[in-house]
Amino acid sequence: MPDGSILVIGVGLVGASIALAATGAGWTVHLSDRTSSHVRVAAGLGAGTVERPEPTDVGLVVVAVPPDACADVVREALADHPTATVTDVASVKAAIAEAVADAPGAERYVGSHPMAGSHRSGPAAANAELFVDRTWVVTPHHASAPERVEQVVALAKACGAMVQLMDPTEHDAAVAAVSHLPHLAAVLVAGQLVDVPAEHLQLSGQGLRDVTRIAGGDPALWTQILTANADALRPRLHALRGGLDELISSLDDRSELTGALRAGNDGTSRIPGKHGQRAVDWAQVVIEIPDAPGALARLFAEVDAAGINVEDVEIEHDQVREVGFLALSVVPDQAAGLRDHLVAAGWDLRA
Amino acid sequence: MPDGSILVIGVGLVGASIALAATGAGWTVHLSDRTSSHVRVAAGLGAGTVERPEPTDVGLVVVAVPPDACADVVREALADHPTATVTDVASVKAAIAEAVADAPGAERYVGSHPMAGSHRSGPAAANAELFVDRTWVVTPHHASAPERVEQVVALAKACGAMVQLMDPTEHDAAVAAVSHLPHLAAVLVAGQLVDVPAEHLQLSGQGLRDVTRIAGGDPALWTQILTANADALRPRLHALRGGLDELISSLDDRSELTGALRAGNDGTSRIPGKHGQRAVDWAQVVIEIPDAPGALARLFAEVDAAGINVEDVEIEHDQVREVGFLALSVVPDQAAGLRDHLVAAGWDLRA
Repeated sequence: MPDGSILVIGVGLVGASIALAATGAGWTVHLSDRTSSHVRVAAGLGAGTVERPEPTDVGLVVVAVPPDACADVVREALADHPTATVTDVASVKAAIAEAVADAPGAERYVGSHPMAGSHRSGPAAANAELFVDRTWVVTPHHASAPERVEQVVALAKACGAMVQLMDPTEHDAAVAAVSHLPHLAAVLVAGQLVDVPAEHLQLSGQGLRDVTRIAGGDPALWTQILTANADALRPRLHALRGGLDELISSLDDRSELTGALRAGNDGTSRIPGKHGQRAVDWAQVVIEIPDAPGALARLFAEVDAAGINVEDVEIEHDQVREVGFLALSVVPDQAAGLRDHLVAAGWDLRA
Repeated sequence: MPDGSILVIGVGLVGASIALAATGAGWTVHLSDRTSSHVRVAAGLGAGTVERPEPTDVGLVVVAVPPDACADVVREALADHPTATVTDVASVKAAIAEAVADAPGAERYVGSHPMAGSHRSGPAAANAELFVDRTWVVTPHHASAPERVEQVVALAKACGAMVQLMDPTEHDAAVAAVSHLPHLAAVLVAGQLVDVPAEHLQLSGQGLRDVTRIAGGDPALWTQILTANADALRPRLHALRGGLDELISSLDDRSELTGALRAGNDGTSRIPGKHGQRAVDWAQVVIEIPDAPGALARLFAEVDAAGINVEDVEIEHDQVREVGFLALSVVPDQAAGLRDHLVAAGWDLRA
């Protein structure tokens, strides 16, 4: 916990949520925003006080204003609060670090990027749990003092987030690939729907909804984000165009098309799961497929009744014996119990 | 219900699921597949019988083989079962209709496309509920006899699906826009991830997972689907490239970039919701924001305790009176109760 109080400048969704979490963690939190009703709503939710702090009492300033205004407000905060650590929450980091580098007190600035949001905006949507188990990137610049970095890390942890330290330029390259490029791909696909006949849109399924969901984001905010990260984004967009050109010509060449689709498989398999977890290794129990109608329906009912969750089912064929097998994948410590259960019920298992 | 039995040729996920649903609806279902263990698994799940039917006893043949094989198997089915209606479930329709048009018995063929799937494949993943409340497009060609169309519609309804009749060419144009284009966009974004450093991928969030999820589909199957629909897909991909080129140059022009992002908003808002529903019109209850810390936290706790679900919260500012208001959106028939509740508890509402 830093010495002194926290001042949150800009109490939209992210600022007010940080304020709520910090208040919950025991800090004194002051709230500030150009729009007075935002401060009143955030205070009304219990996120902190509307009273202005003594400048030298502030230990940590959190700048949570729109990206375009961020660098200026960080510089002002460094000047106005001469002993405070100053961080911000903008989703592009290198340009701000550069703009702050020559400011007096630049060693007290440490950028950060809490990676959480909501389809709703504004302080009324604030939630103290918004950052729990989410990634919060902390991006010290070359002059950031180590003890200032620690204070920003402490704030992120107090909000329940998982902290990742990263160079600002590395961060921007990363979000260009994992956030801004997919955002623009979603926007392009959604943009194509504008002139699709309504009758055709009736065939929309979950795939289209998933691909285009993030294209529903606020155009004004995203204009600021994408413009700020244009340098990292441009090569990604050119690579996308190269991939698209290849794909268009591969419509006449099946093996090239299959290669592009395989690369898509490979790419998705590299994305860490929620909270960064990996799939566990399953154990397989292999059962000879009986030659009787309805037998497998009874098998699955029995497995279900035994309280065993089957994660995957594969069919294998024995070419020599002309029989088939079902391979049931289950969590490893349930495999032995399932085998005993099935043998007792008269099923033939493969050793 | 058609006269006679149903023959399902190809009992992968879709064929076996249709067979299960049709058996459940009281039909006699015969199962056929080049891979004998697939038939045995489907029969073992209770989807039908492995016995071959008398050709003239079959009222309806469902061809559920991979897209590449589909037209040939449909033609064979028309020849082998001289009185049966024949349908297929391939996700591209015009080329099959064209290939079947000059076959004897073409008037007995009616294409269809049940729009449901799973990340799992094969008969072991079959599920009688797979098509419940999903769209099932029925695509008669110019020679399809009306009573044959009715039989295919009856099958789709027996599976619990919502039927949509469409011309095969219209269908293919529609799926190019709402399914195949988003699929390829997901593949392109996912393909870019192959050379992204693992540390950068740690910043992946739900947005990236949503955009790329469908890129995990089977490359062999999707090669067949996309190749079959190349004619409808090519103009969509060229339009995507045009949009991408504009986007790349708009990184230097904010108003153009904002325009592209707005088109994305417009496109997403045109996608029908699940099961085709539309958002209801909410009723608003508007409360003056009190000037006391924690007051709104108590308000939301009270609303919660009253069992009222707030769908949205907006903040409004009265420039003249210098006060703010919270507009709570709720389902219309809860608005009056919420107003009474809040007035009784001492809150100031705007009339």
